[in-house]
Amino acid sequence: MNADQKIAKLEAELATLRAQYSAPAVSPLAPRGGFQKLPVVKGIRFAATGAGVKYTDRDDVMLIECAAGSSVAGVFTQSSTRSASVLDCQKKLLLGTSNEPVAILVNSGNSNAFTGFHGENSVNEICNSVSNIMGITSSRVFTASTGVIGELLPHDRIIEKIEELNTNLDENSAEDAARAIMTTDTFAKGAGSSFSLNGLPVKIAGFAKGSGMISPDMATMLVYIVTDVAIDQSVLQLILSNLNEKTFNSITVDSDTSTSDSLMVVATGKSRASRITNAFSNDALEFIEKLNEVMVSLSQQVVRDGEGATKFIEIIIKGAASNASAKTVGLAIANSPLIKTAAAGEDPNWGRVVMGVGKSGEPADRDKLTIWFGDILVAKDGWVSPSYAEQEGLAYMKNTDLQFTVDLGIGDGSATVWTCDLTHQYIVINADYRS
Amino acid sequence: MNADQKIAKLEAELATLRAQYSAPAVSPLAPRGGFQKLPVVKGIRFAATGAGVKYTDRDDVMLIECAAGSSVAGVFTQSSTRSASVLDCQKKLLLGTSNEPVAILVNSGNSNAFTGFHGENSVNEICNSVSNIMGITSSRVFTASTGVIGELLPHDRIIEKIEELNTNLDENSAEDAARAIMTTDTFAKGAGSSFSLNGLPVKIAGFAKGSGMISPDMATMLVYIVTDVAIDQSVLQLILSNLNEKTFNSITVDSDTSTSDSLMVVATGKSRASRITNAFSNDALEFIEKLNEVMVSLSQQVVRDGEGATKFIEIIIKGAASNASAKTVGLAIANSPLIKTAAAGEDPNWGRVVMGVGKSGEPADRDKLTIWFGDILVAKDGWVSPSYAEQEGLAYMKNTDLQFTVDLGIGDGSATVWTCDLTHQYIVINADYRS
Repeated sequence: MNADQKIAKLEAELATLRAQYSAPAVSPLAPRGGFQKLPVVKGIRFAATGAGVKYTDRDDVMLIECAAGSSVAGVFTQSSTRSASVLDCQKKLLLGTSNEPVAILVNSGNSNAFTGFHGENSVNEICNSVSNIMGITSSRVFTASTGVIGELLPHDRIIEKIEELNTNLDENSAEDAARAIMTTDTFAKGAGSSFSLNGLPVKIAGFAKGSGMISPDMATMLVYIVTDVAIDQSVLQLILSNLNEKTFNSITVDSDTSTSDSLMVVATGKSRASRITNAFSNDALEFIEKLNEVMVSLSQQVVRDGEGATKFIEIIIKGAASNASAKTVGLAIANSPLIKTAAAGEDPNWGRVVMGVGKSGEPADRDKLTIWFGDILVAKDGWVSPSYAEQEGLAYMKNTDLQFTVDLGIGDGSATVWTCDLTHQYIVINADYRS
Repeated sequence: MNADQKIAKLEAELATLRAQYSAPAVSPLAPRGGFQKLPVVKGIRFAATGAGVKYTDRDDVMLIECAAGSSVAGVFTQSSTRSASVLDCQKKLLLGTSNEPVAILVNSGNSNAFTGFHGENSVNEICNSVSNIMGITSSRVFTASTGVIGELLPHDRIIEKIEELNTNLDENSAEDAARAIMTTDTFAKGAGSSFSLNGLPVKIAGFAKGSGMISPDMATMLVYIVTDVAIDQSVLQLILSNLNEKTFNSITVDSDTSTSDSLMVVATGKSRASRITNAFSNDALEFIEKLNEVMVSLSQQVVRDGEGATKFIEIIIKGAASNASAKTVGLAIANSPLIKTAAAGEDPNWGRVVMGVGKSGEPADRDKLTIWFGDILVAKDGWVSPSYAEQEGLAYMKNTDLQFTVDLGIGDGSATVWTCDLTHQYIVINADYRS
């Protein structure tokens, strides 16, 4: 090998090594085909623009206008240090039903969390300004902020843009709105559904931002879903709270809980389908099924954009003492750094799954555990399965989407949770670069 | 630059990058001066040898002989999938006081966990053999195994070595025993104390293995502490259980819980100091203080050998609703991947500490939180402190030993927990190398 060849070889090695320890521009788990085209929802319009809250080269604020008569439901982070916007939204949702129109204004680049009384003040200023310009009572104006924590929100920059946002409202601008609220997301996340209730067409459109339960500077999960279904507020809230448990509350990237997590659903009632007033009617069940599909898709997309993720992992727990117990076991496995690193290393380390069950604190009997990787029976009766061949496990772990199933064998409880692996890129994103 | 210079430069860059992403041979946090010389404890002898359980080039089995009349206490993993040895030790400790001598036999290289009924059989075979050779009743023979999970323990290899171990017992061989039970540890961990009770000299000697709550293949924490103090078994167990809460139960590397964690204390009563029969006597309080020092040292050494650790982090929680609540908050912070990666990146990201408090689920009031990094007041009254300068925080984070203090401002509860940072080396150890 001459000097030039040697230099070329060394440069190639360096490039490979650097790429291995760099954060990818777009998650390798991003859905193919990009952002799903969302259906137009009657009574809903979107706008986005750049206010320069922190980013200067992109949209960072978005507005959703929802027609008079809309029902609004929401679920929020359980953090005891939740942000000013979250507290304000929760307070307003407690006011219950109203026929007034609704506005939702969200910024990225600053989370307005842990900003003391300044935080409340910023929320009030923004809500009052939206109220004045749009002619919507301020108790029907909801906000969210996502980005760096502990810095004062420059709310004047946002307020200056409300006129423009209001002027540019458009029923086709959902994707722009979805992009405006991204922070460390590597792709915009959308999901929609067009279906019929009693033969009349209805639509659901939703988008989410989030790169795990937590991202640098706590810029975490926000989700907005709109529909033209007519539905009572209390029924919508009941449905949302229940579906949330099995979707957004069943995902984890790194076990950390944001101060800003917000999920809101607005139903305008502008479709011609008859009003849902009971969560157990046939129409309601149909709506629940489709809303669930949208929420499953969005929540899985958040996991697929988990910081540094290279594997999407579905964890199915069966035979637990209760559903709640199953979920605790599932999250114990999903949050285990040792299981997540094994997935990253494509190591069929079923012993770590046994450990995850054991550490959950939930009822379990070592000798009744059964574990599958995909369809491969790995362990049963308290020991490795006689039919298990390590080569099969090794081959299975090469898949991008993994499924671990654990049957505890002691009851009827079940749960499914979704997570991703823990890789060098997670460390790169959270430790190597200063915030 | 000529070709040779260019090649040299590229090779240097490659070497730097490779070193950055390799596991260190010895933790940078290892105590200077190596393994502390332990005092000789009357009534205790140790031996170690190589049985080839898995490793072939080192000692992997050790024996401790404790004189007749010894009191034995123990605490063990709470995992519901705990190993056969742990279950056997727990059962035997419930038998209470006895005047028979005691033997403790421990192997590394195989954890004998999740091995079904074979596991119980191996433990029984080993205990019976030790009992026969040493003339000790088998209910006073305790075992532990640490290493790979789910593989049958080749107990015959261990049993073959018991004669030799018994012959070689020596009061000066504690360090050999400490080394024989290491798995992924990068240094042996010992701590001892020589002091007086009512003017009469007594000794404590202890050693531990563990590279975090969990290591590859669940080869986790084992701790053995011996003393010549005379003390009733029930008093020793009470003291141990209490001290354990503030030492080994207050450390975390990665939030994962082992199937094998065992901590045993044996008191031979061979010193001339009078017997402790009450946990609140002056002698007991003196003994508690010294035993606590040994346990603090050993538990901190485990954290300092945490997989990939480059920072030792003490988290002090004050002003919580209760001590238990304070500990939950402390562990929520200590287990947060985002806080651990911030420490690795030397980022004074106090917002992530706020997040950690918020996610703990414990009572907290955002506007009453006070946070210090070392002596630097970082945040108070729900916002960054007016006196805080980012440059000070940046300089502080360069330290190897970090201290984060959080005053919740709502009660009198307090707790201290110890952890380490989360680095590329953790990923290297747990994902890059196949087990």
